[in-house]
Amino acid sequence: MSVLVVGSVALDTIETPFGRVEDVLGGSATYFSLAAGLLDEVRLVGTVGEDFPKRYRQLLARRGVRVEGLSVQKGKTFRWSGVYRGDMNEAETLAVELNVFASFDPRIPPVFSDSQHVFLANGSPRVQRAVREQLRSAKLIVCDTMNYWITNAPEELRALLKEVDGIVLNDQEARMLSGSRVLIDAGNRILDMGPRLVVIKKGEHGALLFGAGEPFALPSYPTAQVKDPTGAGDSFAGGMMGYLASCGDFSLEDLRRAVAYGTAVASITVEGFGTSSLEAASRGDVEGRVGKLRDMLRF
Amino acid sequence: MSVLVVGSVALDTIETPFGRVEDVLGGSATYFSLAAGLLDEVRLVGTVGEDFPKRYRQLLARRGVRVEGLSVQKGKTFRWSGVYRGDMNEAETLAVELNVFASFDPRIPPVFSDSQHVFLANGSPRVQRAVREQLRSAKLIVCDTMNYWITNAPEELRALLKEVDGIVLNDQEARMLSGSRVLIDAGNRILDMGPRLVVIKKGEHGALLFGAGEPFALPSYPTAQVKDPTGAGDSFAGGMMGYLASCGDFSLEDLRRAVAYGTAVASITVEGFGTSSLEAASRGDVEGRVGKLRDMLRF
Repeated sequence: MSVLVVGSVALDTIETPFGRVEDVLGGSATYFSLAAGLLDEVRLVGTVGEDFPKRYRQLLARRGVRVEGLSVQKGKTFRWSGVYRGDMNEAETLAVELNVFASFDPRIPPVFSDSQHVFLANGSPRVQRAVREQLRSAKLIVCDTMNYWITNAPEELRALLKEVDGIVLNDQEARMLSGSRVLIDAGNRILDMGPRLVVIKKGEHGALLFGAGEPFALPSYPTAQVKDPTGAGDSFAGGMMGYLASCGDFSLEDLRRAVAYGTAVASITVEGFGTSSLEAASRGDVEGRVGKLRDMLRF
Repeated sequence: MSVLVVGSVALDTIETPFGRVEDVLGGSATYFSLAAGLLDEVRLVGTVGEDFPKRYRQLLARRGVRVEGLSVQKGKTFRWSGVYRGDMNEAETLAVELNVFASFDPRIPPVFSDSQHVFLANGSPRVQRAVREQLRSAKLIVCDTMNYWITNAPEELRALLKEVDGIVLNDQEARMLSGSRVLIDAGNRILDMGPRLVVIKKGEHGALLFGAGEPFALPSYPTAQVKDPTGAGDSFAGGMMGYLASCGDFSLEDLRRAVAYGTAVASITVEGFGTSSLEAASRGDVEGRVGKLRDMLRF
C-alpha cells in the first residue's frame, strides 16, 4: 500500500543545548514522509519555493518518497526558526516566514487520487477539509492540528473532526480542544467529537490511544540521547500511519502496534539534529526498537 | 515477609475540583502502609499527637498495619492543607503545621529490628540516616526525598544515597537532584550517586525504573476517575515495596513487576479522596489492575 501526506516542507534553523543547525530540511510533511518511508511508500503533497535545494528533493526521493506532488512556486520556501531550552519539551519559536506556504492550496495529483491512507498534517482546517474532499476513496484519514486552529478556527475544526477517521495531537492541544485537564478524559471527549481514533502525544512521556477498546498507553522509547525534538510528533504520526498502510488493516491489535511503531520512529528522530538520524535509519532499526519496547513491557 | 515504613502520619485538608475533605487521615507513612498492606504485613513507625482519632489507628490495624511503632506525643498531630487546580499534577500547599512531627526522632521498636524491607518516607536525610543505622539486618532500604532536602541538606542527602539500596522520587526532584533535564539521563546520574535502584514517578505519565538492566518505563494505569492525587506517590512506593516484600526476591523481573504493582495501587488511590478508595480496595483489585496493565501492554 502507500500513505499520502499533505503538509509543510520547510527550511529550519534549530538551536538546542546540544548545538545549532541552519536552513536544514524540515516541515511536518517532511518528517512524516521520512518516517513513514521507513515502512511503506509515501506520496508527498506540499509546496516549496525556488530556493529549495535540489539535494533535499533528491534525498526525499531516495528515501522512498514520491515527490511528484511537491510543487515549486515563485518565491521562497517556508522557513521556521526555534530554540529548545531546559527539558526541551517545547520549542520557542524565534521566527516564522510562511513564504510560498502562505498560499498553499493543495491539489492532489491524479496519480495519487486513489490513496487509501492519508495524513493531513497541521494546517488550516479549511485547507484540510478541502484536501479531504479530493480523496474520496480514502479508507483512513487522520489529521493533526495545533493550538492556533483550536482558538482561531474552532468551527472549521469541529466540522473537520466529523469528516476524518482520526486525529493525532499533543497533550496541550488535547486539553485545549476537549476542555478537560485529565488526559484520559480529554481523549474520550475528543472521540465524542467524531473521529473513531484519537492519539495524544506526550513527548518524552509517550502516547495515549483512544478508540481501540480501553484507552491504550505506551511510554516513550527510553533513549538518553535526545539532541533535538523537532519533528518528533510528525515522525510519530509517520511511523504510525506507515505501519498501518504496510499492514493494510486496522484491527485493535494493529492500531496498538502502530502506536509502538510511531514511538520507535520518534525516538530515532530526536537522537539527531533535524532529519539526520531519520535519514540514516532503516526499517530494521525501527523493528529493533519496537521489539525492545515490546520486551521491556513484559513484566 | 513484611515491610517497615518510617514517615509522617497526618491529618489532611484537601481541595480538588471534585470536592473538599477536612482533617482526614493522611501522611506519607499512612498512604504507604495502606498500599503495602494490600500485599504484605506492614510495620509503621511514626508519631501523632493526642488529638489523633482512635478510629484512624483502628483503621490502620484493620488493614494489616502493625501500629506498635506509632507513638503518641504530647501536642497535636501534623496537619497539612492543600489544593489541586487545573490538571491536578501538583498540589499547592495552603498550610503546614508540623506539630509533634517537628521533633520526630524515630526509634525502631525491638520487635521491628529484624525488618528486611524498609521504606524511609520523605523526611530529613539526617533522620533517615539515623533510622538506617538502627536497621542492620535490612536487605532492601529505599528512601524518598523532596526538593526542600535537595536544596537545604545536599550533603546529608548525598551521604544517605551511599547508604541505601534505592530511591523513589518524582520527576521534578530527579531533575533537581541530577542536574539533568532529560529524565532517562537524570535516572542514570542518580544511579551513579550510590543506590542500585532509582524509580522516577511521573504522576499521570507513569514511572521509570533504573538499575534493572535497561531503563524500564511504564505508563500510568489509564483511569479517567482522578478525584484527588494526594498520596499517589507514597501509594506507588507502598505497592512496589509491598510486592517486593511479598515475593522476597529482587530479580530484574521482580523489580519491573513491582513497578507495575506500584502503578496499579497508585491508580486506586487517586480515584477517591484521601485514603478512601485505598481503604476499600483488596489484593484482588490490585492484581486485576496489574493484569489489565499487562494485557494492555502486549502489542
